[in-house]
Amino acid sequence: MPYVNIKVTREGVTPEQKAELIQGVTDLLVQVLGKNPASTVVVIDEVETDNWGIGGEAVTVLRKRGL
Amino acid sequence: MPYVNIKVTREGVTPEQKAELIQGVTDLLVQVLGKNPASTVVVIDEVETDNWGIGGEAVTVLRKRGL
Amino acid sequence: MPYVNIKVTREGVTPEQKAELIQGVTDLLVQVLGKNPASTVVVIDEVETDNWGIGGEAVTVLRKRGL
Amino acid sequence: MPYVNIKVTREGVTPEQKAELIQGVTDLLVQVLGKNPASTVVVIDEVETDNWGIGGEAVTVLRKRGL
Amino acid sequence: MPYVNIKVTREGVTPEQKAELIQGVTDLLVQVLGKNPASTVVVIDEVETDNWGIGGEAVTVLRKRGL
Amino acid sequence: MPYVNIKVTREGVTPEQKAELIQGVTDLLVQVLGKNPASTVVVIDEVETDNWGIGGEAVTVLRKRGL
Repeated sequence: MPYVNIKVTREGVTPEQKAELIQGVTDLLVQVLGKNPASTVVVIDEVETDNWGIGGEAVTVLRKRGL
Repeated sequence: MPYVNIKVTREGVTPEQKAELIQGVTDLLVQVLGKNPASTVVVIDEVETDNWGIGGEAVTVLRKRGL
Repeated sequence: MPYVNIKVTREGVTPEQKAELIQGVTDLLVQVLGKNPASTVVVIDEVETDNWGIGGEAVTVLRKRGL
Repeated sequence: MPYVNIKVTREGVTPEQKAELIQGVTDLLVQVLGKNPASTVVVIDEVETDNWGIGGEAVTVLRKRGL
Repeated sequence: MPYVNIKVTREGVTPEQKAELIQGVTDLLVQVLGKNPASTVVVIDEVETDNWGIGGEAVTVLRKRGL
Repeated sequence: MPYVNIKVTREGVTPEQKAELIQGVTDLLVQVLGKNPASTVVVIDEVETDNWGIGGEAVTVLRKRGL
């Protein structure tokens, strides 16, 4: 029954990587908490780099500086 | 003043259906909790089927199997 | 498979009212979108009135003014 | 280490305005709570007006009425 | 820079289990997406069983029926 | 109409600080985006240090090391 939300910047995450995240998080909840995988929900949000800030700056700006 | 977030897969929800969800949830909060509808906020997130996992698999994969 | 999060102020919501919200939102998603109720998740967050602001003020302050 | 999520309707917010929001919220958390700006994360979600409801109606409908 | 939110019912999750979830999710994001662990944030929300609904019923009720 | 959610660790935030955050974020949205303060909602979540992870470790552990 757990619900997991993963937020990352939208920078080319592939369907295969998303599948790995979904499987990996679900397995983790089964192993650590004994949760039922059938009702474990994982939602991935991909956020534009203009819309994600860290250290007071948008990731778009950080990427231009090579960070 | 309540805030409600509804997350569903992006699979063709129409503006009319969204309007029904917004109206229905708002009415429910008025009826059950006596909340003021004027300040009740409903936000609907439509999530790509690649980004929604259940049972360790993406919904894209489940749909291909007819689930 | 939908996920719904309802946030309200913590001001004496009873278990019966929570049950009505859970049932009501689940029914709505079945009726409007044809979703499977068995995998519809509803999470209710009750937020302290000090921690909820509207119009630039905490609800605690609004309540003291009779609002 | 704080995490801030700002949700607004998708109605032409510019990259410059997003940068101001990110900088402003980060500064606020430094000033009020003494948080480390380097690990302060701000995520802005822009929501379609069909998907945002207030007062039981979608913002799309409110905008057509000039509200 | 990812942000992960894990929601589970409040049913006796120990600090050790929380540490395993935090470590496990962080490792997963490093392995699958090459993210920097230093800025990966994981927030665990424990939700009262009265406040978590699935299949139209609160988990409190499901637990009484042995589910 | 914006909705802002601020998540911080539960480490003694006072009601006065919460009021400053609510006022400050609301003012920011008015100044930057011209939003109506009356319908701007701010919700502050205080998260136990066991439940907040960064760099793969719970904040409880980081605090014991003086970080």
